[in-house]
Order: sequence, then structure tokens, then C-alpha cells
Amino acid sequence: MARNPATSLKDVALAAGVSVATVSRLLNGTLELPPETKARIEAAIRELNYVPNPHARRLSRGRSDTIGLVVPDIGNPFFGMLVAAVEEEADRRGLALSLFATLNRTGRELSYLRLLARNHVDGLVFITNHPNTDELAELINTTGKVVVVDEDVPGATVPKLFCDNEQGGRLAGAHLAMHGHKHVLYVGGPEDMISTERRFRGLKSALTERVAEAELSISRYCGAYTVEFGRAAARRFLDEGRPATAVFASSDEIAIGFIEVLRSEGVRIPQDVSMIGFDDVGPLHLFAPPLTAIRQPVSAIGQRALSLLLETNWDQEPPLLSEELLPVEIVVRESVAPPAIK
Amino acid sequence: MARNPATSLKDVALAAGVSVATVSRLLNGTLELPPETKARIEAAIRELNYVPNPHARRLSRGRSDTIGLVVPDIGNPFFGMLVAAVEEEADRRGLALSLFATLNRTGRELSYLRLLARNHVDGLVFITNHPNTDELAELINTTGKVVVVDEDVPGATVPKLFCDNEQGGRLAGAHLAMHGHKHVLYVGGPEDMISTERRFRGLKSALTERVAEAELSISRYCGAYTVEFGRAAARRFLDEGRPATAVFASSDEIAIGFIEVLRSEGVRIPQDVSMIGFDDVGPLHLFAPPLTAIRQPVSAIGQRALSLLLETNWDQEPPLLSEELLPVEIVVRESVAPPAIK
Repeated sequence: MARNPATSLKDVALAAGVSVATVSRLLNGTLELPPETKARIEAAIRELNYVPNPHARRLSRGRSDTIGLVVPDIGNPFFGMLVAAVEEEADRRGLALSLFATLNRTGRELSYLRLLARNHVDGLVFITNHPNTDELAELINTTGKVVVVDEDVPGATVPKLFCDNEQGGRLAGAHLAMHGHKHVLYVGGPEDMISTERRFRGLKSALTERVAEAELSISRYCGAYTVEFGRAAARRFLDEGRPATAVFASSDEIAIGFIEVLRSEGVRIPQDVSMIGFDDVGPLHLFAPPLTAIRQPVSAIGQRALSLLLETNWDQEPPLLSEELLPVEIVVRESVAPPAIK
Repeated sequence: MARNPATSLKDVALAAGVSVATVSRLLNGTLELPPETKARIEAAIRELNYVPNPHARRLSRGRSDTIGLVVPDIGNPFFGMLVAAVEEEADRRGLALSLFATLNRTGRELSYLRLLARNHVDGLVFITNHPNTDELAELINTTGKVVVVDEDVPGATVPKLFCDNEQGGRLAGAHLAMHGHKHVLYVGGPEDMISTERRFRGLKSALTERVAEAELSISRYCGAYTVEFGRAAARRFLDEGRPATAVFASSDEIAIGFIEVLRSEGVRIPQDVSMIGFDDVGPLHLFAPPLTAIRQPVSAIGQRALSLLLETNWDQEPPLLSEELLPVEIVVRESVAPPAIK
């Protein structure tokens, strides 16, 4: 069937007797409809030769043929791998990709978003790594053609893509409970970020299900997703007399800093303290001991981020706010053992 | 003294009775002149209120206020750190930075270089990671306003910035010779790349100076700067019956793949085989055992790359071909010991 470029979403909606938003959400797979309504829309699509949602249909009206990708901290291998995955996908689709590294600073994020407004790029995959301001959400809503990935920008009414952070926390909690841990320290990123909150929520629910309330204690340090914060957290952990038998570090960077300090103080993993990481992007399998970690689906996130940007129908009103979660897994190595008897 | 924007380099050259190139090279610090000539040029600069070589003087004539940075493999933490360093420096100078990741493919490199020609960026820091084609050098020479960093693009007549690869090889060779190694395997990146060639040359010269010719054997595998090649090299090393007592791996990625295979085959570092890496960007200090490595000055390379782009006088003819090397150091950990007695 030849594509009829003159046919619009509006024509289909008119013929099927439904709203434009309904057709659009059906095509995006985000709306369940009564079978009869669905059949009517599908018939209209066939009759009118409408090509549903061709890639980059809206985006291709821009001037640059280039997609933008905004990342916070390109020196962090997790973001490096994520960028590489988006680049691979862009290459596969014959698109150029402009990257903008923001150093995780709001001012730089805003200025790169404005590039989009000036048509330097046709659409943007946006990744931030700090709790956000209203200004950022407003600008994203104004420009449109943005997908928010990895961390949320609350208030931005655009498609969002995250890993299943809560499931990651649950996997870690279940693994620690299975080894008999009842006193667990969670070392998270910044408060108020979904990665920090959801991973903690998952950890807590898995432990609560498996350990009697009277015996369970969960402590929590929050800071930044950096090696420096990992070091500071480990020093605090030691200063406080090791208030836990197991530590769940919420990123590779935090785990690296934490292990560094434990090692220099002669605290052994897992004999003295068990440890689980999150991300599994660095060479954790070569560590002494190899580190058990929750693995993020980095390649899948990168690929899906670009397809979400290209396949969303940006013309529709009201804007399509959706949230998609990609599954994580636990990679069991040698850093968790039953707690030492003190 | 107020800046007189009407004064050009040509006016200064005329007043001092020298060529434009001479003034320009003096200002760039790349030319030693007789004291008398130097004094004459400096007097002309003062008299004419000429502001020598203000940052981005030539670059600011572009339309974008944005600098471009082309990198091969953003998933490799070495390049991630390098990009972060350039971004820091751009931020410090109030410039935006567009990154382009080429997946190390010539076609993508060429298309991103053409962006420069179309004025999407005002200047470009260019990093490649494969032996290059004449087409690339020609395009760089045509566009101008490009500095070549980390690996050479032979034939490109622009400023170039590398780490001191040969010195890195010498440091590794001296360290291995000091521990009594006479049979050394070098695992390099692609043949014909300066990193591969110069590190090997340095290794060889340091070993030759310290070990009697009749006793010395150096073998060499070349491939790619990837974990996969590191694994393949280790398998070849084991298949050939371990033709060396020490291995010098020419990148973090190669070392990671190599160690993975040794470990899975029960070959111990350093008891059975000694090992030195190159880059020292990943968490090598947490490996079992902590890996001795040549450390690249990643931050310094990133900063200097941007300043070289901004401080070069791109107006001068003929183009300024220079090569600058930044020093490396050896970080001694626990992966080198005297050779095992077979």
C-alpha cells in the first residue's frame, strides 16, 4: 500500500469518529480501547492509506537532521556507555547526533535546551543528574520534542524512560536477606531523585517482607553519585562503628569510593562487610573480591531513548506524558556472604 | 590601555618591518627571535594598541559561539574523561561545547567535520582512534580551525597535541627491567598509529639499554584498543605457551580483557605473569592485584586542547603545524614482580 502523505491524523480521527488524541494514543500503544472502537480506527487508517507514525515525521521538519543528547557527567562511565548506545542507534537510523555535556549544572542545561529552540537540533534526549528546578521543566514543555531519560524532571510533560529502580532495590534486598543480613546501609545519590528514592523503596520492601520488624534496621546516607561521596560515606560508616553488616551502594562510583576506604582501613569484603553495587558498567568483575551488582540495561536504555524521541507524535495535544521502565538484573559475584558474628 | 580593534597583525608587522608570520609566531611563542627584533615588534604592538592574540579572536567570527569536539568511542572511559576535561575548560571560558561521537568510523568523522564547514561550530577539537585516510587530512586542512588530539592524522597541517607516548613506553620498560624481566610481550592498538608505535619504541629502547641483547626478547601483538582484543591477545599468549614473563598492555581496555582471561585460566598476576597497563583511567587500584600502569594526563590534555584551539592564530599563512607532548607518569601498584623461575 502506497503511503498517502496528504492524509493526516485528523482525517483518521474524523473518519473514525474519535478525537485526534485517541488515535494517537492507540498508535503509540498507550491506550486500551474497546475492540469495536479500535477496529473502527484501524479501518479508517486502511481506507485513507494513512501511514501511522513514521519515524521522525515531525522531527524531520527541523533544519538540522541532527538529534541532540544532553548528559550530565560524561566522565562517569555509565553516561559514556549510555551515550555510545544512543550514538549506535542514531547511526543505524542514519542520523547525526550532537552531544552536550552539562557538568550537571542547571545553567548549562538551560542553555543547551535553548539550542533546540533555535533549531540547531531537531529533538533532544535529555538526561540530568540532580534534583531539578521548575525553570527546566517549563523550558522542556515549551520546546517540546524532548524525552527525559534516566532521572526525572518533575513537571515536564513529555515521554520519560527509566530503568526499573525499585526492582533493582528489591533484588538487592532479597539477595542480602537470603544471606541473613538484618542491618543494612543504603548509600544513595541526592535526596528527591527518583533513582535514590525508588531503589531505597525497593530495598526496604524486600527486606521488610523477609526480616522480622523487630530485628530489621535500615540506615541511609544520601549524597552524590561520585567517588568522593562514596569515600565520605565509608568514613562515616566506620566512624559510626559500622552500623550495618551489609552495604547497598547506589552506583558504581559510590561503590568505588566506598571500597577504596574500606580497603585502606583493612576492612574485608565480604568477611567483615558485604556489599552490592548498582550500574555494573565498570570492570567490577576484576575487583578484589568481584563485586555483586545490579546491572542497568544501558544499551537498551540508549536505543529506546532514541526510538521514543522519533516515534512519539509531537503534534498531538495535550502532550503525551508517559513513563516507561526497563528491567534490571542482579549479577551475583563474590562480595556478599553471611554476616560476621561480632 | 584600551584595545584598538582597528589595528591588525599586518599593521604591527608593517611598523616593525617584519612579516605577518613572524609577528604571529612570536605571539604564539613558537619562534625565538634576536632580542632586537623582538623589542621592535613589542614596541609596535604598544604604539598601535594592538591586543595580541585575544582568545577566540578568529573563532568568534563564526556564528555559533560553540566549539565542537569529535571523539571516537565515548563508551571508553578514557575518552569520557577527556571530554569532561574539555567541557570543564569550555565552561570556565564561557563557551558552549558540542560533542560528536564517531564510533571511530571515517564516514561519521567526515560528516561531523562538514558541520564545521557549515558554521554549526566555530572550531573543532578532533580525536580519532584509527589509522587515517588522506580524505580526512584534506578536509581538516580545508576547514582549518581544527586541532588534532591524542592520535595523529598524518597530513593534517594543524596544531597537534599528544601525551608523551614514547616516554610512557620507556617508563614501562625500565620498570620491567628493574624487576629482572627479559622476555616481554607488548600488546598494542592498531599498527601505524602513533600511540602503538611510540609506546613500543619507548619500551624497546628502555629494555635494550638495560638487558643484554642476547638475553632480550620482545614480542608484539597489535589489534584494537578494546576489551575484546585484550581477551583475544591473552588467549593467543596462552596458546603460544606464554612467550613472555611480563606483559605491557597499551590501554585500560586491553588490560581488562587480558586480565579477565588470565584469571579464568588460573594464571596469577604477578606470581606467574607480571603486567603493566596504560591510561590509568578506570579503577585499576581496586583490581586483584592492583594494576601498575602508565597514567595519561587526561585533564591536562583536555584543557590544553581547548586552549590550543582558541589561542592559535588561524589567519596566518602557511598553516601552523606544531606538535606538543604532555608528560605521563608511572603509578606503581602490585602487578609487577620478578619473573617466576620455570
